[in-house]
Amino acid sequence: MYYAFELSMKVRDYECDIQGIVNNAVYQNYLEHTRHEYLKTLGHNFAALAKQGVTPVVYRVEIDYKFPLSSGDNFVCKLRTEREGNLKVNFYQDIFRESDNKLIIKALVVAVVLQKGRPVKPDFLFD
Amino acid sequence: MYYAFELSMKVRDYECDIQGIVNNAVYQNYLEHTRHEYLKTLGHNFAALAKQGVTPVVYRVEIDYKFPLSSGDNFVCKLRTEREGNLKVNFYQDIFRESDNKLIIKALVVAVVLQKGRPVKPDFLFD
Amino acid sequence: MYYAFELSMKVRDYECDIQGIVNNAVYQNYLEHTRHEYLKTLGHNFAALAKQGVTPVVYRVEIDYKFPLSSGDNFVCKLRTEREGNLKVNFYQDIFRESDNKLIIKALVVAVVLQKGRPVKPDFLFD
Amino acid sequence: MYYAFELSMKVRDYECDIQGIVNNAVYQNYLEHTRHEYLKTLGHNFAALAKQGVTPVVYRVEIDYKFPLSSGDNFVCKLRTEREGNLKVNFYQDIFRESDNKLIIKALVVAVVLQKGRPVKPDFLFD
Repeated sequence: MYYAFELSMKVRDYECDIQGIVNNAVYQNYLEHTRHEYLKTLGHNFAALAKQGVTPVVYRVEIDYKFPLSSGDNFVCKLRTEREGNLKVNFYQDIFRESDNKLIIKALVVAVVLQKGRPVKPDFLFD
Repeated sequence: MYYAFELSMKVRDYECDIQGIVNNAVYQNYLEHTRHEYLKTLGHNFAALAKQGVTPVVYRVEIDYKFPLSSGDNFVCKLRTEREGNLKVNFYQDIFRESDNKLIIKALVVAVVLQKGRPVKPDFLFD
Repeated sequence: MYYAFELSMKVRDYECDIQGIVNNAVYQNYLEHTRHEYLKTLGHNFAALAKQGVTPVVYRVEIDYKFPLSSGDNFVCKLRTEREGNLKVNFYQDIFRESDNKLIIKALVVAVVLQKGRPVKPDFLFD
Repeated sequence: MYYAFELSMKVRDYECDIQGIVNNAVYQNYLEHTRHEYLKTLGHNFAALAKQGVTPVVYRVEIDYKFPLSSGDNFVCKLRTEREGNLKVNFYQDIFRESDNKLIIKALVVAVVLQKGRPVKPDFLFD
């Protein structure tokens, strides 16, 4: 499987819940951070874009939870993008545990780009 | 639309991000808290279940982000459940802004119940 | 003890950590939310102030952790303020468990108000 | 100044708030993660300790906020410990921005170690 970008991180204990595993919502943090770091490799800074009134926003997420990360696990977030129609960008984002390459989650995050509140073609960000 | 349970909450400023709106991941916190409060109305305490080795886990989420919540917004989380096959429980969870009943997100959270790590029929929790 | 404001909340399971108790950092969320709700009763909205370039910032915190909150606990955050010198506002903030009025944390949060990056007298906010 | 341990991290956008800077509570996450990573270098795993009923808990924190971290900043958390009396361990924890070594926060975190709910001498952890 081809990925355009990958980022390694490590579970922090405050991200784990009563069950001793990473809380479901936290994976969305990991996914967001990975997308923003990917945008930087394309020359875009999320905070700077926001100041200019350009805001990539999440339109839809689908996450399949395959296996939980636990305290201390190292993991890698991988992504690739795909254009859908004129306005949408699909981020396919998978997380793997580094010790054994086990698939942790499989996600699709559909984003659109707003400029002054209106959707615009995202080409200028991704091309 | 019929809902089995609803819970009112209010956006807290620390839940808002650089864009001044609630961060995408935070909605999963709202959804989880609503499910756990719903379980309590059925007589089940999530923390107590965890101690007994019974752990409802999220298998898949789908969230459509319709409109963002902002600082200070009051909102209501509504849910209904549906059994799918022997092992899955679908939570249909919608969030509405209270001031104008505007739909904020529409979510499907598919859960399974594990007992000592193995999926079991969730009937004892939901019937 | 006199308090100027109080706010009731309930522990949410995602705020609890591996030990099954509320994570230390989360109390700062509770304290911040309480201060912001208090400011609203004085006619000030934190997000609106930020847009105007007026930003109350935390200068120092001291928190004594007396007893942990657990999953499902109801608690009340109480605060009173005191001016210190020309520029500082001391927020004395205590959290009590509601079931038995047990003291959970005792905090002092020292804030200053910045306008375009410079400290200004906070009178216009608190008088 | 001597430090026993240091850990480099990077601000993630979801940690920033409406003001575009790292939220005050998030620094406690950074501090906790640094302490737990430090404990690992001493051969102790926080999650494993918790399972054995040994729980280092925070007794008091003092944090001086000197300068805020912003989106994308790299920073380093440094710590040294000091025993206080029979039961307390003082963690002196400072955070610096990496680009210019600017001091961001200065913190003192006082911890005690509980075994089955009772404070015990922390020597076995730190010696």
